Amino acid sequence: MAQDATKPIVERYLEDFVVGQTFTSGRAQVTQQEIQAFAAEFDPQPFHLDENAAQDTFFKGLAASGWHTAAMTMRLLVEGEVKPAGGIIGAGFEEMRWPRPVRPGDELRTESEVLEVRPSKSRPDQGVIKLRTTTLNQNDEVVQVFVGSLIVLRRRAG
Amino acid sequence: MAQDATKPIVERYLEDFVVGQTFTSGRAQVTQQEIQAFAAEFDPQPFHLDENAAQDTFFKGLAASGWHTAAMTMRLLVEGEVKPAGGIIGAGFEEMRWPRPVRPGDELRTESEVLEVRPSKSRPDQGVIKLRTTTLNQNDEVVQVFVGSLIVLRRRAG
Repeated sequence: MAQDATKPIVERYLEDFVVGQTFTSGRAQVTQQEIQAFAAEFDPQPFHLDENAAQDTFFKGLAASGWHTAAMTMRLLVEGEVKPAGGIIGAGFEEMRWPRPVRPGDELRTESEVLEVRPSKSRPDQGVIKLRTTTLNQNDEVVQVFVGSLIVLRRRAG
Repeated sequence: MAQDATKPIVERYLEDFVVGQTFTSGRAQVTQQEIQAFAAEFDPQPFHLDENAAQDTFFKGLAASGWHTAAMTMRLLVEGEVKPAGGIIGAGFEEMRWPRPVRPGDELRTESEVLEVRPSKSRPDQGVIKLRTTTLNQNDEVVQVFVGSLIVLRRRAG
């Protein structure tokens, strides 16, 4: 298949992941326009749409939708060091927090740590890793923490 | 399930939420173009970007990013019946699952149920409700389940 030609430089299989391993990402800045565009499409609330209206809300100023922060984090993960064979496929997560809002101009990056590695009982070709991913801004303040499970391929026997 | 476009917009305070209450939303269809556009910006992986490349992956065909499903769910929630005073402000989540992928042309809707209602100990003007939101497709198949906590304002005394 043509897939072989597009294989990424590093591909990690289940056997390559170890509890305690850490991975980082590049950095990505978010603009006010991007915050407002995401909100207009997916989370049209005053505190994500309008700088003035946002002043009198819980956020006391324009803030990115939490789902925008999550989506930006996904981009950083996809382009970051984790690189599971088969791609980053989330099975679900068990914890998600946004301790601090993302503001226009913030520059985000991620730090991930492997918390668990286990083969699937029903699918001999795959397994699951539990990963905690922390998203930080340019001041090293945490803007998101999530603990999620990724489906990862096992190396083929033989 | 029933949509009532004539329903008046209400604002619910913490005191208006009761465990066991349920809320629904309207419906929203997602196109292949939207799935690919979201993926290009936030989750650029073959199974979200390219119909042909997606055939040989875990998803066996083009599928929406889980974060796209989450973002579409947020839009349905914002425009749906929950309507907390002060807006829908997520404090975090303790469970998120994507039991089935969202495909081009799928039409999504949400069903939410209040699991907990509690005043804040530190902030007398607000509280938290725990809400389970299930996102279903046009065949009533579950595509996402999340249990999240929303910050909700209390009615002012006096």
